Amino acid sequence: MDNSKIPQATAKRLPLYYRFLNNLNHQGKKRVSSKELSDAVKVDSATIRRDFSYFGALGKKGYGYNVEYLLGFFRKTLDQDELTNVALIGVGNLGTAFLHYNFMKNNNTRIMMAFDADPNKTGTNSDGVPIYHIDDLEEKMGDVRVAILTVPSNAAQEITNRLVEFGIDGILNFTPARITVPSDVRVHHIDLAIELQALVYFLKHYPLIEDE
Amino acid sequence: MDNSKIPQATAKRLPLYYRFLNNLNHQGKKRVSSKELSDAVKVDSATIRRDFSYFGALGKKGYGYNVEYLLGFFRKTLDQDELTNVALIGVGNLGTAFLHYNFMKNNNTRIMMAFDADPNKTGTNSDGVPIYHIDDLEEKMGDVRVAILTVPSNAAQEITNRLVEFGIDGILNFTPARITVPSDVRVHHIDLAIELQALVYFLKHYPLIEDE
Repeated sequence: MDNSKIPQATAKRLPLYYRFLNNLNHQGKKRVSSKELSDAVKVDSATIRRDFSYFGALGKKGYGYNVEYLLGFFRKTLDQDELTNVALIGVGNLGTAFLHYNFMKNNNTRIMMAFDADPNKTGTNSDGVPIYHIDDLEEKMGDVRVAILTVPSNAAQEITNRLVEFGIDGILNFTPARITVPSDVRVHHIDLAIELQALVYFLKHYPLIEDE
Repeated sequence: MDNSKIPQATAKRLPLYYRFLNNLNHQGKKRVSSKELSDAVKVDSATIRRDFSYFGALGKKGYGYNVEYLLGFFRKTLDQDELTNVALIGVGNLGTAFLHYNFMKNNNTRIMMAFDADPNKTGTNSDGVPIYHIDDLEEKMGDVRVAILTVPSNAAQEITNRLVEFGIDGILNFTPARITVPSDVRVHHIDLAIELQALVYFLKHYPLIEDE
């Protein structure tokens, strides 16, 4: 099937479904209901059924979905077998958290190298990942085209410009800075403060109702 | 106006608009076009105009939006003056990154206390925030009802159960674990690996087009 037909909102949930189904499979489970999936991944059942219909997976009443079929489909769709190498820029606390985090577990992404401006950090390894000096960015990147940005805010745009000049395809921006890139570079921005503010805002204005 | 009338997708963008407009205001800017806003916050102009219409803010052609009016509205809406205290659970690398991050800058949230299981960390301060032992969670929480969860995955559900028992309202879950809570507890989940996977997936299947 043509992946470009899957709505973006659905596409965004694919890695989530994949991870949960992979766990089920490891536990030897053969089938799963949309209710179980819903409880596990915190997406409502109706949305799951709609999402799955795009994958050509139609659950059977009283049986649910075939775990192996779904996994096969997701694996192909998410290109789980094709590894994407990623560079981490900025080995502070957040960057170090990323390095400790085992991306290889059920994942198709690997942090291959890291960069930092601190000479005390460069030339070392963290969790098996070499840390190079930021001055050597262009020289060391090789064919890596995806970067995680965990530098201080005031360095974010300058490093971004260098990445763009180098030919980066995508940046996962974890700095509070909003960075500017050409239209052919994809940026996903996760701002810790805004995530917290959004949670607090929802708590105040959209109270949840206890159902028990 | 009644905030519950604002769609959730719009509500989620409020903190973003607020921060940018606050910066403009500090720079002495009196007005802003939806185009400028769009470039800065990376939300398309049509969405911004629709969002702002919910706030009763109608941009004038060739003039744009009045920065001060919008700020006044957002400040009231986001309850910027009312501070929400937050507890951080787990002072590893990610937790420490949160503590270094200055949430008070343009924000209405403050990490008031942190908890960790490591006795070498407890009894100390990090960025002015006291770190208590996790055993003292219930005793120290006081009237805090929002928590950031940055503990190891295998401890996530156990700590969550304690937080729920204590009466938590909201959890910002930064662990890879999907946690289970009663329906009246709000959880926002940010999984670093899934964010990276989603970026890579989009890069492969939804290539962007260069416009210059």
